[in-house]
Parts: sequence; structure tokens; C-alpha cells
Amino acid sequence: MMNRSFLAALSVTAAAVSLPAAAQFQKPEDAVKYRQSSMFVMGNHFGRIGAMVQGRVPYDAAVAAANAEVVSTMSRLPFAGFVEGTASTDKGKAKASIWTDRAKFDAGAKKMQEEVAKLLAAAKTNNLDNLKAAFGETGKTCKGCHDDYRNQ
Amino acid sequence: MMNRSFLAALSVTAAAVSLPAAAQFQKPEDAVKYRQSSMFVMGNHFGRIGAMVQGRVPYDAAVAAANAEVVSTMSRLPFAGFVEGTASTDKGKAKASIWTDRAKFDAGAKKMQEEVAKLLAAAKTNNLDNLKAAFGETGKTCKGCHDDYRNQ
Repeated sequence: MMNRSFLAALSVTAAAVSLPAAAQFQKPEDAVKYRQSSMFVMGNHFGRIGAMVQGRVPYDAAVAAANAEVVSTMSRLPFAGFVEGTASTDKGKAKASIWTDRAKFDAGAKKMQEEVAKLLAAAKTNNLDNLKAAFGETGKTCKGCHDDYRNQ
Repeated sequence: MMNRSFLAALSVTAAAVSLPAAAQFQKPEDAVKYRQSSMFVMGNHFGRIGAMVQGRVPYDAAVAAANAEVVSTMSRLPFAGFVEGTASTDKGKAKASIWTDRAKFDAGAKKMQEEVAKLLAAAKTNNLDNLKAAFGETGKTCKGCHDDYRNQ
């Protein structure tokens, strides 16, 4: 059902993106659902920070930090779900180029995780300008991989 | 899009289950997807601990603790997604009794969060027997609410 060495990597952000993960999902559909679920939760909490950054809700430093904590946890999860043989041609789904171009995909994931770490640090400074800057940089890394690796 | 007082509660486990949350989701479907996604991710990582508890993978204290950390973060999230008007009669989906019986449902959520806190503490003791005991108690709280509030 799962791979011990992968699990060990859960606590090591940089390593978590590149280890084989197929063994921990019983069916390919579980891997797909796992990556989609963790991305959705990450996006929801990232969006709550966005609402503050964009002035749609009042800035609250503690709330921003709590959301950034969730984003940080989630940022480490989805990539284990990108197991071989789970590409799709459907809109909004994973392109086959993820697997033919895996090193670049993994580098994109790592870059996102690094920006999320900065986002969390920025959220903890209790300064909205810091949060805005880090939110923008993080958002670029989301968009970069979505543009390249998600069917439009 | 969201409710400031709810967001503040994200960092306060006990409060997170009982505050109104509808305002943070743009559509009811988003709330449903959010609760299902966070439950799925929680279940996945809880299941990885279960594999160790049941001897299907070797016990690794650091891995167990890393998974328990994810479970702990996730345990606070799903309940915001149980907004009014999102019951279903489909198998595996939320029963209407959640909303007619909300105080009991919320108490069940709180109990689960308390057991997850104990699970995380147990995982950090580096003792498999402690982990087994806490895993069992946590699992009962999952099953309790699923039996009562999820269509069979």
C-alpha cells in the first residue's frame, strides 16, 4: 500500500517531490483523487489569503498566518499523487508532459514549496505589504505549472 | 467570500467546528468539495499510520509523526464545509440529520479533534503500542460520525 522511504520524505520538503510514490496508492484513481483533493484544499486556503491581499476581507495577521500554515502543509502533499499512467486529456487535468518532463515538473513543485515557505514567513511578519509580495510570488509558481502541465 | 471570525478560528481547534462558515464558499458545491477533499486527505494519511499499526509496513516513528501532523492539520478543516443546504441522499454522502442534529454532530467533530491531538502526541513518543492505542481510539471517532451522519 505504501512506500516507507516516501513516507520518510513527508517531513523533508525538498525530497518529497521526487520519490516514487505509486506504491502507496492502491489504485491509480486514488492517486488522482489525492492530488486533486490536496490541491483543492491548498487553493482554498491560498485563496483566503488572496481575499485579504486584494482587500475583499479585512487583513488579519493571525488569520493570514493560520491559512499560510495550512497552505504550507498542503504544499508538500500533491506530488506523491502524480504516479505514472495517470495523465488525462480532459480540461483542467494533468498533461502527459508531466511524466516526459518530470525533472522540470519536480523543479516547479520545489520552487512552489520554496515560495510557500516564504509566504508563511511573510504572513508571520504581521505586515500586509510583505504578505502581498509573497502572495504574488507564490501565485506565479502556481500559474507556471498550471499553464505548462494542466490541460487548458 | 469568507467570514473573518471563522478564519480567526482556524487556529483554535475547539472553536473551528461550531462557527458559521457558509460565507467563505462562493457556491454550495465548493463547500461540499472542500469538506470531501479535506476528509479524503485526512483519511489517506490516517490510513498510512494504520498500515504501520497493522504491520503492513514497518513501523517508523518519524514517518508516523509526519503523517499524524498532516492528520492534525486536516482534522480542523472539513467542518466549515458542512454549510446549510448541502445534505444528500446519495450513498457515502452527508445526511440531513447533520443539520437537524448539529450540536451532536459538532460534538463528534470536537471529540475526533481531541483524539487526533492524542494521536499526534502518541506518535511523538516513538512507541508503537502508544500509537496503536491512539489509532484505535481515533478510528472510533471517525466511525462514530460516519455511521450516524453518512448515508450507508
